[in-house]
Amino acid sequence: MATETPLTIDERIEEIERRLNDEDLLALSQVLTDTPTADLVVVLERLGRKQRAIVERLLSKERALEVFEGLDPSLQSDLLHDLQDHEVARLFEELDPDDRMWLLDEVPAAVATRLLRGLPAEDRALTASLLGYPQGSVGRRMTPEYVSVRGSLTVAQALDRVRARLDDAETVYTIPVLDDARRVTGIVSLRGLLAADPAATVAELAVEAHTARVTDDDEDAARRCADLSLLALPIVDRENRLVGMLTIDDAVRILEHEESEDAARQGGSEPLRRPYLSTPVTRIVRSRVVWLLVLAVGATLTVQVLSAFEATISEVTVLALFVPLLIGTGGNTGNQAATTVTRALALGDVRPRDLGRVLSRELRTGALLGLLLGSLGFTIATLAYDFHIGLVIGLTLLAICTVAAAVGGCMPLLARAVHVDPAVFSNPFISTFVDASGLVIYFMIARSVLGL
Amino acid sequence: MATETPLTIDERIEEIERRLNDEDLLALSQVLTDTPTADLVVVLERLGRKQRAIVERLLSKERALEVFEGLDPSLQSDLLHDLQDHEVARLFEELDPDDRMWLLDEVPAAVATRLLRGLPAEDRALTASLLGYPQGSVGRRMTPEYVSVRGSLTVAQALDRVRARLDDAETVYTIPVLDDARRVTGIVSLRGLLAADPAATVAELAVEAHTARVTDDDEDAARRCADLSLLALPIVDRENRLVGMLTIDDAVRILEHEESEDAARQGGSEPLRRPYLSTPVTRIVRSRVVWLLVLAVGATLTVQVLSAFEATISEVTVLALFVPLLIGTGGNTGNQAATTVTRALALGDVRPRDLGRVLSRELRTGALLGLLLGSLGFTIATLAYDFHIGLVIGLTLLAICTVAAAVGGCMPLLARAVHVDPAVFSNPFISTFVDASGLVIYFMIARSVLGL
Repeated sequence: MATETPLTIDERIEEIERRLNDEDLLALSQVLTDTPTADLVVVLERLGRKQRAIVERLLSKERALEVFEGLDPSLQSDLLHDLQDHEVARLFEELDPDDRMWLLDEVPAAVATRLLRGLPAEDRALTASLLGYPQGSVGRRMTPEYVSVRGSLTVAQALDRVRARLDDAETVYTIPVLDDARRVTGIVSLRGLLAADPAATVAELAVEAHTARVTDDDEDAARRCADLSLLALPIVDRENRLVGMLTIDDAVRILEHEESEDAARQGGSEPLRRPYLSTPVTRIVRSRVVWLLVLAVGATLTVQVLSAFEATISEVTVLALFVPLLIGTGGNTGNQAATTVTRALALGDVRPRDLGRVLSRELRTGALLGLLLGSLGFTIATLAYDFHIGLVIGLTLLAICTVAAAVGGCMPLLARAVHVDPAVFSNPFISTFVDASGLVIYFMIARSVLGL
Repeated sequence: MATETPLTIDERIEEIERRLNDEDLLALSQVLTDTPTADLVVVLERLGRKQRAIVERLLSKERALEVFEGLDPSLQSDLLHDLQDHEVARLFEELDPDDRMWLLDEVPAAVATRLLRGLPAEDRALTASLLGYPQGSVGRRMTPEYVSVRGSLTVAQALDRVRARLDDAETVYTIPVLDDARRVTGIVSLRGLLAADPAATVAELAVEAHTARVTDDDEDAARRCADLSLLALPIVDRENRLVGMLTIDDAVRILEHEESEDAARQGGSEPLRRPYLSTPVTRIVRSRVVWLLVLAVGATLTVQVLSAFEATISEVTVLALFVPLLIGTGGNTGNQAATTVTRALALGDVRPRDLGRVLSRELRTGALLGLLLGSLGFTIATLAYDFHIGLVIGLTLLAICTVAAAVGGCMPLLARAVHVDPAVFSNPFISTFVDASGLVIYFMIARSVLGL
C-alpha cells in the first residue's frame, strides 16, 4: 500500500478527463493503472462514447473485463459497438451467464444473434436456456451455475461435491437440497456443512427453503430474496424442481433498476436506462416529451373548466388570484398520498385488496389536513379580503384536500389492479386530475356562497 | 411437503384476520403453525398493535424470534412495549448486534438503557461499541462479529480459524486479511480458501480490498457494497485498521430505508418509518402537515404575484384561463429534471461538482421541450383565440420550460452542496418556485405582446 494520501475520486476524474482532452495517452495509461477498478467504472460512466472506448482499450485484458462487468448494460452495448470484433467476442465470452442476459436485453436482435453465435457451445446452451424465459421473469435473471446436493448424502460427501464445483459455480454458499426428482426439499449453507459432523446426512441439516417460480416477476423474487436476507434464492419450475439460483447481487441490481424506473415515472418521465451524464440531450428530451405532452393535453381540461366559469371570474376577479394556491395545495395533498401508497405497494405493505382500508384512511387523513388548512385559509382570506371570500377559500381547501388524498391514495391500487405501473398513475397524472376537479369544486362553492 | 395446494398469502391474511376478530385462539394458533415465517411477517405488519402482540405470544419461542427479527424496528419497538419483561429480555438478547442497533435507534432512551442493562456483559460491550459511532454512520450498521486472518497464515491455518468462529461470526464468507497492526491489506473468500492449496499462504491468495471508513455515511458505504456486488464490506478506522464488516443484507436494508425516505420527501411528506397499514391516521397526518403548510405558505407568493397583475387580468380575462395549464406544465418540466438528477445523485452518476454540466444539459433539454410545446401552444391558442394570445402562450411555454428544467436540474445539486437532502428540494418545492416565477414571466410577456 502506498503511504502517500491516495487521490480522491473527484481528483482522479479530473485528471483522467484532462489527459483525455490533451490526448496524452501515455500519461493517461499511467493514471488508469493507479486507479482502483470501482473508481474506473464511475469514470467510464461519465465519459462520452468515444472516450470510453479509448479508456477501455488502454486497460490490461483482465482489468478491461472487470471494468466492463461493472458498467451499465446500455454502456456495455455501446462499447461492443465501438470495439473490434475479437475484443468483443472475448469480453462477451468471459461474462457470467446472467450478466450476459442483461446485455442481450440491451443490444439489437441482430447483434445478439451474432454474439451468441460466437460463444463456445456450452456457454451458448446455458445462455439459450435463460433466453427461453419470458421478459421480466426471474428466469432471465437467475444463474444456471449453482451447486445442489441430495438429502441422502453425508456432510462429507456434500462438501466434496461443493469443492468440485468451486471453480465454475457462481454461488456456493447457499446450497439447495434436492430429492430424486430434483425437487427442492430444503436448504443448507456452506457454513452449516463446515460446522456439522461429517458423518451426518444433509437431510438432517436442511432447513425450510424459500423459493420463487421461474416465471415469477423478477422484482417480486428479488424483493423476496432481499426481505429474507438470503444470499441466494432457489428458483423452481411448476413441479418445484430446481432450475437456477437468484443471487443477492442480482436481486439488488433488479431492485435498483425498478426503483430508478419508479422514481422517473413518479417524476413524469420515462427511465433513461443509462447514467445521466452519458445520455445525449436528445435522448433525455425523448424520455420526457411524451409525458409532458400527455399532461399538457390533460391540462387543457383546466382551460375548459375556467372558460365555463369565465363570467364568474370577470365578475369577481379576486377569485382568479387563488387558483394556483388552491390547485397547488390539492396537487400536493394528492401527491403525498400517492407517493406513500405507491411505496407501500412496492414494499408489499399494501395489497390491491386493501382498497377499502386505504380509501377510508386517506379520506380521514385528507379531511383532517383540509380542516387544518381550511381554518387557516378562512382566517387569512377573511382578514385580507372579506368573510365571504374567506368562507369560499376555507370550504374549498377542506373539499379539495379530502378529494385529493382519497384519489391519490386509491390511484396506485387501481393501477396495479389493471396491471399498469402504479408510478405512472402517480404524481403528475394526479395533479392534472386534481387541478380540473379542484377548479370545478372551487367555482361551485364560490357561486353558491357568493350567490352568483 | 403437503400435496394439497398451499393457501396463497392473501387467503392466509384473510383467515388470520378472521380468527383474530372471532377471538378463536385455538384455530388461530393452528393457522399460525401452518404459515411460513416470511408470510407471518407480512401478516404482522398489517395488524393493529394489540392483535400483533396476541399473535406474537401464540408463536413458539423459536418462531417468535424469527418473526421478530423480520419486523420493522418501529414495530419491534411497539412489541417490546406490549410484551412482558421476560419475553422482551429474551427477544432482545437473541438479536444480532447490528439488528439490535436498528431497534435501539427506535425506542425511547429510557427503554434503551433498560434493555442494554438486561444484556449479558459480552453482548452489552459489543452493542456499546457500536453505539459510540455517530448517528447515520456505517459504524452503527456494521457487525463486530466477523472472522479475519493474518496474511502470514497458511490456507490450512486460516480454514481452521474460520471453522473455530463458525458459530458466533455473523459473516464468514468474506474474510479480511490483516497485517500485524490489524490494518486491512486484502481480502480472501471462504470459497477461495477451500479451492486453494492448503500449504499456500493467505497473502498469496488475497486480492485488493474495498473498504469504507467507520465514520462514512451509511448510505455511501451500503451503495459501495451493493455496486461492487460484495457479500460484505470491511469497515476500517482512520488508520485502516479493521473494526467491523457491513454485510450485504444490512446494506440492502439501509438502501431500502433511504429509498423510502427519498420517495416520501419527493412526494412532499416525511417518511412514515413504519408499514402504512400499521400507522395510525394521526401519524400519517403529522408526516404530511408540515410540508403541506410550508408549501401553502410558499404558494401565497402566487396570490401576491397575481394581485400585482390584477388589472391586467380584469382587462383580458382570457389570460386567467391559461394559468393552471402554464404553471402546471412548468411544474411538470421542473419535476422531470429534478427527479432525474436526484436519482443520478443517489446512484453516484452525478456529483455536486457537475453543476455546470447539468445546467448546460438541462437548459438545452428545457429549451427543446419548450420549443416543441410552445409551437403547439401557439398554433392551438391562435386557432382558438387570436394571433396575439397565441404568441403569448407560445413564448411563455418556451420560457417556462427552459427556466423550470434548469432550476429543477440544479436544485438537487445545490441542496447536496449545502448538505440538505436533495429529495426535500425536489418536486413540491420546485413546483411552488416555478409557479410564482412562471406567473411573472407569463404576465410580463402578455403585457409586452398585448401592449398593456
